Amino acid sequence: MQTSVPAMTEKKVPVSAFMLRMAESITSTARSLSEDDAQAFLDRMLGARRIYVAGAGRSGFVAKAFAMRLMHLGFDAYVVGETVTPSFTRDDTLVAFSGSGETTSIVDICEIAKGIGGTVCLVTSSPSSRIATIADCVVTMGDLTGYYAKEKTPFEVRQITGQYRSVTTSFAPLGTLFETQAMVFSDAIISAIMEAKKADIADMKGRLSNVL
Amino acid sequence: MQTSVPAMTEKKVPVSAFMLRMAESITSTARSLSEDDAQAFLDRMLGARRIYVAGAGRSGFVAKAFAMRLMHLGFDAYVVGETVTPSFTRDDTLVAFSGSGETTSIVDICEIAKGIGGTVCLVTSSPSSRIATIADCVVTMGDLTGYYAKEKTPFEVRQITGQYRSVTTSFAPLGTLFETQAMVFSDAIISAIMEAKKADIADMKGRLSNVL
Amino acid sequence: MQTSVPAMTEKKVPVSAFMLRMAESITSTARSLSEDDAQAFLDRMLGARRIYVAGAGRSGFVAKAFAMRLMHLGFDAYVVGETVTPSFTRDDTLVAFSGSGETTSIVDICEIAKGIGGTVCLVTSSPSSRIATIADCVVTMGDLTGYYAKEKTPFEVRQITGQYRSVTTSFAPLGTLFETQAMVFSDAIISAIMEAKKADIADMKGRLSNVL
Amino acid sequence: MQTSVPAMTEKKVPVSAFMLRMAESITSTARSLSEDDAQAFLDRMLGARRIYVAGAGRSGFVAKAFAMRLMHLGFDAYVVGETVTPSFTRDDTLVAFSGSGETTSIVDICEIAKGIGGTVCLVTSSPSSRIATIADCVVTMGDLTGYYAKEKTPFEVRQITGQYRSVTTSFAPLGTLFETQAMVFSDAIISAIMEAKKADIADMKGRLSNVL
Repeated sequence: MQTSVPAMTEKKVPVSAFMLRMAESITSTARSLSEDDAQAFLDRMLGARRIYVAGAGRSGFVAKAFAMRLMHLGFDAYVVGETVTPSFTRDDTLVAFSGSGETTSIVDICEIAKGIGGTVCLVTSSPSSRIATIADCVVTMGDLTGYYAKEKTPFEVRQITGQYRSVTTSFAPLGTLFETQAMVFSDAIISAIMEAKKADIADMKGRLSNVL
Repeated sequence: MQTSVPAMTEKKVPVSAFMLRMAESITSTARSLSEDDAQAFLDRMLGARRIYVAGAGRSGFVAKAFAMRLMHLGFDAYVVGETVTPSFTRDDTLVAFSGSGETTSIVDICEIAKGIGGTVCLVTSSPSSRIATIADCVVTMGDLTGYYAKEKTPFEVRQITGQYRSVTTSFAPLGTLFETQAMVFSDAIISAIMEAKKADIADMKGRLSNVL
Repeated sequence: MQTSVPAMTEKKVPVSAFMLRMAESITSTARSLSEDDAQAFLDRMLGARRIYVAGAGRSGFVAKAFAMRLMHLGFDAYVVGETVTPSFTRDDTLVAFSGSGETTSIVDICEIAKGIGGTVCLVTSSPSSRIATIADCVVTMGDLTGYYAKEKTPFEVRQITGQYRSVTTSFAPLGTLFETQAMVFSDAIISAIMEAKKADIADMKGRLSNVL
Repeated sequence: MQTSVPAMTEKKVPVSAFMLRMAESITSTARSLSEDDAQAFLDRMLGARRIYVAGAGRSGFVAKAFAMRLMHLGFDAYVVGETVTPSFTRDDTLVAFSGSGETTSIVDICEIAKGIGGTVCLVTSSPSSRIATIADCVVTMGDLTGYYAKEKTPFEVRQITGQYRSVTTSFAPLGTLFETQAMVFSDAIISAIMEAKKADIADMKGRLSNVL
C-alpha cells in the first residue's frame, strides 16, 4: 500500500536533533520575550496574597510544576481542582496556562475568578484570545510552530541541517512548544523571585515533600 | 461449557438489595465501633497542627474526601502526593487509610512520618498489621466480608432474604466494605468536630471550591 | 462572648451515632430507589463500549472509585481530566455524579458529550436540574438533608434518640449525604454487574494495581 | 540585620536571561546525549505492549506529560497511581523519571516491576543510582548544576554575561534542570516515534481530550 521510498533520500533524525531544535526555539522565545510583560508578571507574583494555578492537559502539568515551586519558596499556592484548594477570593491571584487562551474549562475558571474580583494572569501563545482580553496581565510565548495561529500562517520551515528530511514535521507536535516555553518561562520567574527575595535554597529544600 | 442452571433457582437481585446490605454492614460497624478509639482519634484531630492524609487506591479517595472536609472546617489539611503538600514535621499528624495496614507505599509513608517524630493515626480493618503496630492511634473497622482476614475465616453467609441466590457472592468485592466504612466513619468524625468546635455551616460553605 | 450554656442540656454525641444515622439514611435511600431507573442505569453500563466518569469535589472521588472498580471488572473506563483519557466519541458513555446537577464544569462536560452524540447517565439528588434534562438516564438519590432543595424545604428533624441535642445539625454537612449515597449506589451497580456477568473475583484481583 | 549592599554592584537579572541559560543547558545536554542510549530507549518504546510511567514531584508531571503524548500516538499508556491503571505484567514496560534514581517510592515501583518480570527504563541524572543498576535501559541527562552529584562537585560557575551578579545562584534550583531536560528528551522521543511510525498529526488531534 505504501509506495517504496528510496532510503537514501531520508536519513534518520537523531533524538538529539529534536532537543537541539527545542533549545533553539527557547532561545528564540527568550529573545522575543517582552521584558516589561515578564516584570509585570513577576510583580504580580511578588505582591500576591495567595496564588492559584490552572491549566488543562499538559499545560496543567506545567501549572502544577509552577505551583509546587512556589510552595517551596514559601508562597500559599494552590492548584484549581486539587483536594485542599480553598475558595478563591478577591484578594487572590490566578495564573492560567493556556496556549490557545480558549480552552473552555480554563476560560470558565478565569471568568469566575474575575467575577469574584480577583487578579488573573495568563501565560499564552494567543494574545488576542478570550482569556487574554479579560486578564490583568498577559505574557506571550511565540507561536513558532503556528499551532495556535488563527490564520494558520505557515511556519517558516527551518531545518537544523540540510541532511535530515525535515525536523519540522515531527518537531513539537500539538501544543508541545507552548508547554515547554511556559515551563521554562515559569521556572525563570521562580529564579527571578529567588533573586528578589534573596531566597535561601536550604529553606526551599526544607519544604520539599519528604514522605514519599 | 457452562452447565445450564434452572432459571427459577436464581432470581435477579435488585440493586437496592446491595444498598440495604451495605446499610446493615454500616449499622453493624457503628455498633461494634470502639467509642474510646473513636474519641481518641477525634482528640488527635482537634489537637493537630496540620493534618496529612494518605491512602492507596480507593482508600486514597476516602482519604482525600476527608482532607477536603477538614479544609472546609478551616484545618490545614494536605494530601500526601498532591502538588502543594509541604514537608512533614514532628508537629504534624498523618492519617492513613489502609484496610490491610500493609500496603507498601502507605507503610513507607507511615514509617517516614514516625521517623520524623510526627503522629500517625490509622483507620484500618487489620489491627495487627504493620502500620497498626507503629501508629499512635488506631481505629478498627470490622472485616465483615473477611477480605483482610489472615486466616481467611469464612464470612458467615447471611442473605438479606431467602429468595436471592446469595447477595454475598457479589456484595462489596475486594476492599469495598472497608472503604465505605472508612468514609462513613471519617464523615462521622467531621460531624463530631463540628459539634466540638460548634462549626458554622456558613463558614464551611464559604470555603467550598468556587472556581470550578 | 459566648454565653455559658448549661452543660447538662447537651450531651456529647458519640461518633457511632452519626454512623448509625448514615446507615438509616442509606436504608431510606435504598427503599425509595426507583428500581426501574437503577436497572436502566445497569443496562447502560452493561451495554457501554467505554465508560467515562466525571464529578467535582467529593463527588469526583466517588466517580473515580466507580471507574476503578469498572476497570477491575475489565471495562474500558476513564476519568475525565486524568492523563491518559482519550477523546470521547458518539459510541461512549459518560457517567456524571452531581448532587445539584448544576455544577458548571460538569454541566459543560455533559453538554459536550451530548453534542458529540454520546450517552450521558447522571447520578444526582436533583432530578429537575440542567444535567438531568439532557441526560439519557437519571438515577435519583433522595435529598434527605435538603441540601440541594431549591425551595429549601426544611428537613424533618429526626433525632436518633431524644438524649442528644440534635444529630441533625452536624450530620452530613454540605453534600456528604449525596456523596455517600452515590458511592453505595455505584458499588451496588458494581455488584449487579458482577451478578450479570458472573464475574470472577480472582480475575478482579488480578487487575488490582500492583506497583504501588 | 542585613548589612546594606551597594545597589550598583548588582544589576537586576532580566527574566529572559534565565530562559537563555536554560536553552544553553538543553543544548549542552543534547550534545552530550548518548545517541546509542537514546535509540535503545526509543526501541523499547516502539516494542512495548503497554507503557507505564512513574515519577515523584515535578518529575511526575514530566512522566504524565509523556504518557499523555503516548496516548495521543495510540499507545496503551498508564500512569502509576492514577485511577484506571491496571495491574502491571511481565509483558509491560515501566518508564521511571528520577533525577536522583533513589526516590524511595520510585525505587519501590521499579523493584516491583522488575520482580514481576517486566521491563524498566530510566531517565535520570544519576547513572550509578539504585534504579539505574536494576533498569534494562538508562538514559542519562547531564547534572550541570551538580544537584545530584554525590561528591558535590562544585558546578563551574558560568555567567551568561559579565554584568549579572550570577545567574547561577538562582538558576534551576533543586531538580529543575533535570525536569526540563527530561521533558525535552521525552518530547524528542515522541518526535522520533512519530518519524518511525510516520504518525499522522490529524490522528493525534483526534485523540486529544475533548470533554474538558
